[in-house]
Amino acid sequence: MIGEGAVEPKVRAINYGKSKITDQKIVDLNQIKAIIKPDTITWIDIQGFGDTSTIQQIGDIFAIHPLALEDIVNVPQRPKAENYEDQVLVITRMVSLDPNKQVQMEQVAVLIGKQYVITFQEQYGDVLDRLRDRIRVADSRIRKKGSDYLAYAIIDTIVDGYYPVIDALGDHLEELENTVMESPSNQALRELNETKNLLVNLRRAVWPQREAVNSLIREENVLISDEVRIYLRDTYDHCAQTAEVVEMYREMSSGLVSIYLSSIANRSNDVMKVLTIMASIFIPLTFMAGIYGMNFEHMPELHFRWSYPILWMAMVTIACGMTYFFYRKGWLGGQAQ
Amino acid sequence: MIGEGAVEPKVRAINYGKSKITDQKIVDLNQIKAIIKPDTITWIDIQGFGDTSTIQQIGDIFAIHPLALEDIVNVPQRPKAENYEDQVLVITRMVSLDPNKQVQMEQVAVLIGKQYVITFQEQYGDVLDRLRDRIRVADSRIRKKGSDYLAYAIIDTIVDGYYPVIDALGDHLEELENTVMESPSNQALRELNETKNLLVNLRRAVWPQREAVNSLIREENVLISDEVRIYLRDTYDHCAQTAEVVEMYREMSSGLVSIYLSSIANRSNDVMKVLTIMASIFIPLTFMAGIYGMNFEHMPELHFRWSYPILWMAMVTIACGMTYFFYRKGWLGGQAQ
Amino acid sequence: MIGEGAVEPKVRAINYGKSKITDQKIVDLNQIKAIIKPDTITWIDIQGFGDTSTIQQIGDIFAIHPLALEDIVNVPQRPKAENYEDQVLVITRMVSLDPNKQVQMEQVAVLIGKQYVITFQEQYGDVLDRLRDRIRVADSRIRKKGSDYLAYAIIDTIVDGYYPVIDALGDHLEELENTVMESPSNQALRELNETKNLLVNLRRAVWPQREAVNSLIREENVLISDEVRIYLRDTYDHCAQTAEVVEMYREMSSGLVSIYLSSIANRSNDVMKVLTIMASIFIPLTFMAGIYGMNFEHMPELHFRWSYPILWMAMVTIACGMTYFFYRKGWLGGQAQ
Amino acid sequence: MIGEGAVEPKVRAINYGKSKITDQKIVDLNQIKAIIKPDTITWIDIQGFGDTSTIQQIGDIFAIHPLALEDIVNVPQRPKAENYEDQVLVITRMVSLDPNKQVQMEQVAVLIGKQYVITFQEQYGDVLDRLRDRIRVADSRIRKKGSDYLAYAIIDTIVDGYYPVIDALGDHLEELENTVMESPSNQALRELNETKNLLVNLRRAVWPQREAVNSLIREENVLISDEVRIYLRDTYDHCAQTAEVVEMYREMSSGLVSIYLSSIANRSNDVMKVLTIMASIFIPLTFMAGIYGMNFEHMPELHFRWSYPILWMAMVTIACGMTYFFYRKGWLGGQAQ
Amino acid sequence: MIGEGAVEPKVRAINYGKSKITDQKIVDLNQIKAIIKPDTITWIDIQGFGDTSTIQQIGDIFAIHPLALEDIVNVPQRPKAENYEDQVLVITRMVSLDPNKQVQMEQVAVLIGKQYVITFQEQYGDVLDRLRDRIRVADSRIRKKGSDYLAYAIIDTIVDGYYPVIDALGDHLEELENTVMESPSNQALRELNETKNLLVNLRRAVWPQREAVNSLIREENVLISDEVRIYLRDTYDHCAQTAEVVEMYREMSSGLVSIYLSSIANRSNDVMKVLTIMASIFIPLTFMAGIYGMNFEHMPELHFRWSYPILWMAMVTIACGMTYFFYRKGWLGGQAQ
Repeated sequence: MIGEGAVEPKVRAINYGKSKITDQKIVDLNQIKAIIKPDTITWIDIQGFGDTSTIQQIGDIFAIHPLALEDIVNVPQRPKAENYEDQVLVITRMVSLDPNKQVQMEQVAVLIGKQYVITFQEQYGDVLDRLRDRIRVADSRIRKKGSDYLAYAIIDTIVDGYYPVIDALGDHLEELENTVMESPSNQALRELNETKNLLVNLRRAVWPQREAVNSLIREENVLISDEVRIYLRDTYDHCAQTAEVVEMYREMSSGLVSIYLSSIANRSNDVMKVLTIMASIFIPLTFMAGIYGMNFEHMPELHFRWSYPILWMAMVTIACGMTYFFYRKGWLGGQAQ
Repeated sequence: MIGEGAVEPKVRAINYGKSKITDQKIVDLNQIKAIIKPDTITWIDIQGFGDTSTIQQIGDIFAIHPLALEDIVNVPQRPKAENYEDQVLVITRMVSLDPNKQVQMEQVAVLIGKQYVITFQEQYGDVLDRLRDRIRVADSRIRKKGSDYLAYAIIDTIVDGYYPVIDALGDHLEELENTVMESPSNQALRELNETKNLLVNLRRAVWPQREAVNSLIREENVLISDEVRIYLRDTYDHCAQTAEVVEMYREMSSGLVSIYLSSIANRSNDVMKVLTIMASIFIPLTFMAGIYGMNFEHMPELHFRWSYPILWMAMVTIACGMTYFFYRKGWLGGQAQ
Repeated sequence: MIGEGAVEPKVRAINYGKSKITDQKIVDLNQIKAIIKPDTITWIDIQGFGDTSTIQQIGDIFAIHPLALEDIVNVPQRPKAENYEDQVLVITRMVSLDPNKQVQMEQVAVLIGKQYVITFQEQYGDVLDRLRDRIRVADSRIRKKGSDYLAYAIIDTIVDGYYPVIDALGDHLEELENTVMESPSNQALRELNETKNLLVNLRRAVWPQREAVNSLIREENVLISDEVRIYLRDTYDHCAQTAEVVEMYREMSSGLVSIYLSSIANRSNDVMKVLTIMASIFIPLTFMAGIYGMNFEHMPELHFRWSYPILWMAMVTIACGMTYFFYRKGWLGGQAQ
Repeated sequence: MIGEGAVEPKVRAINYGKSKITDQKIVDLNQIKAIIKPDTITWIDIQGFGDTSTIQQIGDIFAIHPLALEDIVNVPQRPKAENYEDQVLVITRMVSLDPNKQVQMEQVAVLIGKQYVITFQEQYGDVLDRLRDRIRVADSRIRKKGSDYLAYAIIDTIVDGYYPVIDALGDHLEELENTVMESPSNQALRELNETKNLLVNLRRAVWPQREAVNSLIREENVLISDEVRIYLRDTYDHCAQTAEVVEMYREMSSGLVSIYLSSIANRSNDVMKVLTIMASIFIPLTFMAGIYGMNFEHMPELHFRWSYPILWMAMVTIACGMTYFFYRKGWLGGQAQ
Repeated sequence: MIGEGAVEPKVRAINYGKSKITDQKIVDLNQIKAIIKPDTITWIDIQGFGDTSTIQQIGDIFAIHPLALEDIVNVPQRPKAENYEDQVLVITRMVSLDPNKQVQMEQVAVLIGKQYVITFQEQYGDVLDRLRDRIRVADSRIRKKGSDYLAYAIIDTIVDGYYPVIDALGDHLEELENTVMESPSNQALRELNETKNLLVNLRRAVWPQREAVNSLIREENVLISDEVRIYLRDTYDHCAQTAEVVEMYREMSSGLVSIYLSSIANRSNDVMKVLTIMASIFIPLTFMAGIYGMNFEHMPELHFRWSYPILWMAMVTIACGMTYFFYRKGWLGGQAQ
């Protein structure tokens, strides 16, 4: 039974040893058990949770603990590493850019067994093709190592997938900096806010991821060899680095809010300067014109021959004086724009 | 004796084993002891603290430590887990939405004994009906486990009850984002502030809850089996996840305050632009009209045939010039709105 | 010798056992030693540090460590618990409301010995009367326990004394929220700031208090029995709860500053809207009146019969048009007020 | 060789035992070794680093580790406590007010040896005269204790020297609060900012100081006796208290920035209210006057006998109406000033 | 193969013992192995990653762990210290000022072996010339110590290289403070924001650097002698101090944003004051002139002999009154500028 919006499970098994490799689509789940052999490593990749019976069947075949199965299916869980009797479950968060440059997040559950690794994800598509290519290379390091190294490679590839996303966010922040300075529209602020929320969300993925990798390194477990623990330290450092960059971008986006608000304040200032300049020049002149528009019988100036040109000269003088005053104040020339 | 606003205690006992289940309302407290049997699990659910003698009687029957009893009755306590000689008291905070979508918080004290779990809450109504249904299912996992699993199920159900509340708050924040951008009234800010305070309050419930679950997992105690501790790790992760989402929403609501303030600043800008445009266009024109309203005897222009139409043309030119100036500045068209 | 502003020491001793209790004012300090008996508990309560010789004498009689004595007398010290050879000194901060609803803070030093507890405070008056009443009750729990329980009861009562103060601050914050929204005067901000500073001050009292209680619980010490440590856990939780509420109120008061600033911005907006509406309606009209106030010889309109009423109609049309424009913008009706 | 701005070293040695004390200025450094005796304590106080050879010579005489010597001379180092073979180096930061109420900070390095303590500081002048007086008192506690107690006394006196500085800053903040509310000039903000920076600087001195004292208490070291560790706990508490007050003042100064900004916003409001009131009253009146300044031939009102007084009445009515409107809005009376 | 923008590797080897020193440019990498001798220390300095085969060859010669090699080449890594079998890799971040006073950051990887230290950096140029000079001095401390001391000296010199950069940033912040107060242009804010981002970036370099040095001190490793660990404590303190100063500057730059915003608000205030003063003085006067420009037949004042001069007097009085009013309000004289 497949729910709406959910996708039908696709099961794919890559089985490899030092010398040979098979990569097949599994239709009949009962075949799976036969693929796993004591001298090869099998990566079973399950994408799509639409048909819960498939997942349940996998759970039965591999004797997955019910709690582990719940964490796999009820997405999103917090990234973590949990030890079960003869399996380790690592919940990771895969982050990628879709074709519209939108950030996509999806849970990938990595279940590590003695000779196999099972990955579960709800939707189709992942960032692991690079890894699959590496497995196909006959002489590659991964072909000589155990399931723990495969699990490390999967987790490491997922964590490395954060970098392009973070770079894209960094570029977007730089663009936004220009936007908020030059045209601080509400739209820009909204975008800035979205980026900030995205960063907060990313942090929520990255920090527990780091803890999860750390617990893989520290906690006793026969499934993870000491050699792979050294490799995982590298993954840990990449998580830490990612977390720091995310933090840095969050601070930068907070700084952009200040720039935005100050841009708006500068705009207001600009508007007000225009008003003030216009009003301050013309209101006094209008007053002067108003004076000689009065109808008093006894206004001697009205009858003087040179009154009118003299008034014009006075007006021009005042207008120039005000303009000079504003020029001195630096209100002309739009230097604050 | 029942105080004002307090509600009369209702006592309900669910007793179950692998094969049978009874669910009864207890009126005579002396019956309780008889219900508890060594081979079944009993969940005694007490709602309403109106009659302190009932609570006291329960305390006497189950030999509850006076401090535990105080923590149960004096609500709200901080969520915590306390070990007593042969009982564990877990103080939890139940969060739910009432029919008006208002967030309700209430303390639920969970007292774990060898064959029984007692829950205490001050008001009627809880989020545990889903759990009661699960108990009624004949073959369910809970029917095969001990009182510690029941306690875990209760706590887990309470913690899971946070999700819908948090989702509702997330939806509300999204609505608020639109509101503060489109009509940034004080009312919107007030609502935003209330949501923020609510989130701070929720955090106060969630963080110690997490600690409480953690101490249940870590601290030595014969009442909690190792198997249930594994289940509690899951509850712990859910607490952690909830806490992170609450934190994220708090940051988002802080971001909304920035948006709000900038919306108001944009409004001011808008108002000022209208003023500046109107004033800058008409004040010079009024000045020109004022000039030719003067009553000087010697104003040659007054007597020219085409003065009036020429002046009109000058005025229209100036008005168009100013309008073009404002258009170039981008002040027309309300792009900042 | 009594300094200015300092008050003369008053010494009061409550001595109690299971069956009897005495409560006396001590005038001659040499009597004190006689009051303390191996089978009763004595609470010596010293209020007022005006006469340093009294304190010194107490120090000599009970062999108080010079550092302890310094911490007792040089107020305020940071709340803490210090173990000395056969005494424990707990520095606590008592918080209360004076009759003018002003928050008062005062150090209470609690010195715990084998059969006695000595409390020191600089000024008269405390929040412990409730406790004294409980001691007087013949059958109360406190009468059956040792000096460590008495010390616990004193510290617990002091910590419980924080609640009414915090409640009062919460009420005050709610009032302030209304004030800053409806009349955001500088006075309101000042009050808000004072409340905030008070909360910061309270936090400084509460956090170390919590640590102090914690070190009483954790550190090895023969004077504090395991049973009382269980009780102290409760006090610890109350400290933690208080600290959390204080933190929450601090965040709320920060939120109020945002509301305040936005209220002021809204007011500005309101003022500017009035200006803009008035100016935008009347400046064009004044311009039109100015046109026909000109004295050109050749202005045909001046001589038309219906010019004047037509102009009026044009003016009314423009005024209505502008009003409608402002109405559409939502600037009428003061919705942002 | 003495560099510019650097001051010539002054060396002073106070040597004391239970019964006697000598206090001498050392000119010939070779004398120093002779002063130190197994049954007395010697405090060598070196002020001025102008002549590096002196410091080097001291380093050679007392076999000071080269790293310790570097930390002593290259000021400012971060406050810390370092154990060397048979010496302990404590870097402290002395804070004091100069006669102009400016805050001065200077590093004092305290080198603790078995029978001696050496203090190094770059400039002349310290806050330790009170301590020197206490040493001179024949029966004082310090005379009966070892070099560790002397070191404690020096560090404690330096830490106690923070209190008057912090009090002065608190007073200054209170003054600033009045200033920013009543005349929020840029100058006030600048001062506020300086005070804030000073507080940040102080925090940088106080926090590591606390850590340094703590490591003195915790780390194993034969030079520091258990008794002195008890005394150092007190110093630790004073550091903690100072750190808390500094934090509190920093928060208060941040609050003052809000007050400042709101004061400025209130001022703007005030300015705008005056403009709006003047413009809103007189612009309509000017329009009315403009109407009857028009020169239409057919304006019946112009010829009515009572037109002029009626118009005046209308104008007065409008002016009063507007004034009443503004009064109702609360814009008159400057309540927001 | 050399990529675009990448630079060709330059390899330089300094080999020294107590008595002799050689410093040579390595062209043929096969020579390297011969240089390293059991009784001397060799510092191999590789600058430029343009030719990956060189790096790979170095990796092969010295048997560098593939993960270590990846961390060396894939810049920038997070500063850290990693123990490999017989090597320690320390990733450091070198910070320097280029000739245009721009801050440059570059990763320097320090690989410590038994008798050698290899440093890797991507671009040419470093801050280590001072160190090379010290090595050349025949009798210097560094000549008598092992490779661990050389590594310490390199790391310490890199950390000391932070100080001039931080000082330059401090100077720049002080300049910016003046700029934002006197001419708060958007440009100034942009610069301020850049400085802030730079500080955030610096913090990202400094904090993990501190952790890296700390793990060198704490973690067991035969390559690092106890003596060098004491020296590294000093480097650790310098990292801590740098981190604190960076934090302080970040707070200061946040304070500058407040100053900037308040400067802009003050400017707005200033603009509005000019507008208000001009409008408030001339609008009433214009109204008065408008009154007597009306053409009512019956306006007795028009015919009075002294009307005109009386009106002038009234106008002057009003203008003076308004001016005095503004003077009293402190709006003249630009005190808020």
